[in-house]
Amino acid sequence: MSGVFNNFNDDTICAVATAMSDSGIGVIRVSGKDAVAICDKIYRSAKMEQTLKEHAPNTIKYGYVCDGEKIIDEVMISFMKAPHSFTREDVIEINSHGGVLIMNQIIELLLKSGCRLADPGEFTKRAFLNGRIDLTKAEAIMDIISAQNNFALDSSRNQLRGSIYDKVKSLREQIIYEMAFIESALDDPENYDLTGYPEKLKAKVSDLTSEIEKLLSTADEGKIRKDGIKTVIVGKPNAGKSSLLNTLIGDERAIVTDIAGTTRDIIEETVRLGDIVLHLIDTAGIRDTDDIIEKMGVDKAKSKIEEADLVLYILDSTRDIDDEDKEIISLCADKKTIILLNKNDLSDDIKINEDNVFKFFTNVDNVPVIKTSMLKGNGIDELKDALSKLFFNGDILPKQEIYITNLRHKELLQKVYDSLKLVDDSISKNLSEDFYTVDLSNAYAYLGEIIGEEVGDDLVEEIFSKFCMGK
Amino acid sequence: MSGVFNNFNDDTICAVATAMSDSGIGVIRVSGKDAVAICDKIYRSAKMEQTLKEHAPNTIKYGYVCDGEKIIDEVMISFMKAPHSFTREDVIEINSHGGVLIMNQIIELLLKSGCRLADPGEFTKRAFLNGRIDLTKAEAIMDIISAQNNFALDSSRNQLRGSIYDKVKSLREQIIYEMAFIESALDDPENYDLTGYPEKLKAKVSDLTSEIEKLLSTADEGKIRKDGIKTVIVGKPNAGKSSLLNTLIGDERAIVTDIAGTTRDIIEETVRLGDIVLHLIDTAGIRDTDDIIEKMGVDKAKSKIEEADLVLYILDSTRDIDDEDKEIISLCADKKTIILLNKNDLSDDIKINEDNVFKFFTNVDNVPVIKTSMLKGNGIDELKDALSKLFFNGDILPKQEIYITNLRHKELLQKVYDSLKLVDDSISKNLSEDFYTVDLSNAYAYLGEIIGEEVGDDLVEEIFSKFCMGK
Repeated sequence: MSGVFNNFNDDTICAVATAMSDSGIGVIRVSGKDAVAICDKIYRSAKMEQTLKEHAPNTIKYGYVCDGEKIIDEVMISFMKAPHSFTREDVIEINSHGGVLIMNQIIELLLKSGCRLADPGEFTKRAFLNGRIDLTKAEAIMDIISAQNNFALDSSRNQLRGSIYDKVKSLREQIIYEMAFIESALDDPENYDLTGYPEKLKAKVSDLTSEIEKLLSTADEGKIRKDGIKTVIVGKPNAGKSSLLNTLIGDERAIVTDIAGTTRDIIEETVRLGDIVLHLIDTAGIRDTDDIIEKMGVDKAKSKIEEADLVLYILDSTRDIDDEDKEIISLCADKKTIILLNKNDLSDDIKINEDNVFKFFTNVDNVPVIKTSMLKGNGIDELKDALSKLFFNGDILPKQEIYITNLRHKELLQKVYDSLKLVDDSISKNLSEDFYTVDLSNAYAYLGEIIGEEVGDDLVEEIFSKFCMGK
Repeated sequence: MSGVFNNFNDDTICAVATAMSDSGIGVIRVSGKDAVAICDKIYRSAKMEQTLKEHAPNTIKYGYVCDGEKIIDEVMISFMKAPHSFTREDVIEINSHGGVLIMNQIIELLLKSGCRLADPGEFTKRAFLNGRIDLTKAEAIMDIISAQNNFALDSSRNQLRGSIYDKVKSLREQIIYEMAFIESALDDPENYDLTGYPEKLKAKVSDLTSEIEKLLSTADEGKIRKDGIKTVIVGKPNAGKSSLLNTLIGDERAIVTDIAGTTRDIIEETVRLGDIVLHLIDTAGIRDTDDIIEKMGVDKAKSKIEEADLVLYILDSTRDIDDEDKEIISLCADKKTIILLNKNDLSDDIKINEDNVFKFFTNVDNVPVIKTSMLKGNGIDELKDALSKLFFNGDILPKQEIYITNLRHKELLQKVYDSLKLVDDSISKNLSEDFYTVDLSNAYAYLGEIIGEEVGDDLVEEIFSKFCMGK
């Protein structure tokens, strides 16, 4: 890739690549220049005579892992020869029985024979460092593994197939073309004429910024589609919060799932409404006490609302709005909020209706109001429509080909955008071409960081350390 | 194998063979006559043109799993051709990304393409039904996967390599030889002389029974070595139970482990003293209340003691034995018990010592007494020695080559033993040769059941249903 990765060492590494839990099969992966030599120390072919060195690449051999004379396990061994492997190094995969104890014994044996235990993500890191994949593809691998819904999986697949890489590469090529042109013109003014160039560049920069704007505009939706909507349900006692929750969870279209890795303390239930995923924050409290506000106080509600993407504000139509309500409403400023008017079929004495409710929610724009009857379970379809409008511009299915779902990419694209805006600014101010070059070069570098062409060791460490073992 | 397995169908089956938890790699296994044809419906080689049919067996191919035109995952595919595979059928292993969602999508695709989801253990069951392995080897595979210590792993490995199968086969051959001889002699008395035969057979049967006796004698020790010692700690409040527990758990030689699959309600802690594993029963109660007896009453203690392999009875040397103690002591009859005399360094007023303690424990044979000072953490080595003597005749390392660790094997060996004893009995009573044959034939059949040559569908179902998925 490049010379910036000084701490890239060429140890031969090993790790269990499957989950560390008793199962039928376990896969232990070995990668590095000594993979064959090390595995030959512990491998015996079925007839106890052949070595791995004699095996053809991309074949599977049945045999034994042995500690001296003692057979540790019956295994199938696959050998992928460099550079035609995941890491571009010699890779051996040992397909063993999937017991935790036996997998650990094989790992111990490999360590004793000269392997080092791989860091989390180190195989993928080597695939990156050896130039087989760029950083966005490496990140896509992790996202594919941890994908919790079809959108997340599809966008990670696109990313692995190069959607982001190709886009970034094309943007970089356009930028470096302009940089090269300016450079040449300054060096060789006789053959390159900069007359009229600033106007051309302005147009070009405008095209580029709008492309990046378009990408950035997918980021929020992409994140929501990928990770789901963090939702807090607020409302006074007996307004119908528990019923709403039960309706959401009990609805035949809603599947309650356990999402590994979410903090169980914070997110209690995950509800799927078609392709829309809601993570209900702190609903445990809501369910137990039926009143998030009363028990937790306004301060607690405040922090819950702050961390949420969405507030579902449930109001009892038959009761007036009081000061406590108003205080909570004030917290919803700048939050996507949906008002659920509940119990409006129960009484003639309606205090809050679709016409007068807006005077309380003056701080939230375009707040959708849905009349619900939780007793009858009505309003779920309307809620789904409102969610789709609020978060996906009304489109349940993803519209874009590329979604930015990775915060790192989003932040870098924002820096690219800002740098290009500075170029535009310099042109408007008639500053000299040197000023364009500095900011174009920054934009180029930030784009390079996305695909991993201009990143330092620290960032590489950080990105790959989030991976699971054996990958 | 034989025609007794009527419900053996030849569907092509599939399952995730690795653990269903997000990890680097997942392996999906497909077995059956249509494995190649089905996988060809969902597989595209890297250049999107080659089919699996064209792949040579025992090779690995890089490519894609596709749903129509949509790429589901990048995979490595291994193909093992019948009969040179785990099941003796065509087997394809799909090495995918190890995300739960993606593994499920591949399984769904396989189901849609004509596979049936495998039952737990069905791959191994097919290996058995197709005659690749006998029943003891099939059971060994499950034991290898779930092995929790080195003894369990070693004895399962021996079993997988045929230690039990070979032994049983040799016993069967000896028995069928005698059966054949009697049969021949009765059919053809002119050429076979039965004079003096009963004496010879008596000697033979005596050899066989002592061989089986030897095997049976390993069963208790084998079970304890494999599964650990279920241990209940009893004693009065403040006798030092909690300190003992803390010493055992906190000792640098003791590793506290979580054993998957143990009922957490019953077994709270697992402690390793070298190669001896103690499962401490209901220590949660002990830890919380410091008094198993007082809180649970004698009835509860009784059931705990009944299910235990070992009672650790901890006595405060400075206090007299009272009626409650005596009641508990009476429950230890026929249980392996170790007495721990605690706090004998604390006072001059010793009420119970090594000389007088036996008068209370008259119902337990050879009860070891260990003086401990839990405050100082003394007595752990002595406890280890006592355990080794009680359970392993003083040998920490296994002595036998073959240990019977499977209850099914033990019960069948007991039936073989009983049948052979009946043969001996018939000879002693000078009964006719017909009687010998009936019991010899039973012994032969019971031995056949161990290796799976004379078992019915129900038993096969039951044995393999205990397996994990994908194996």
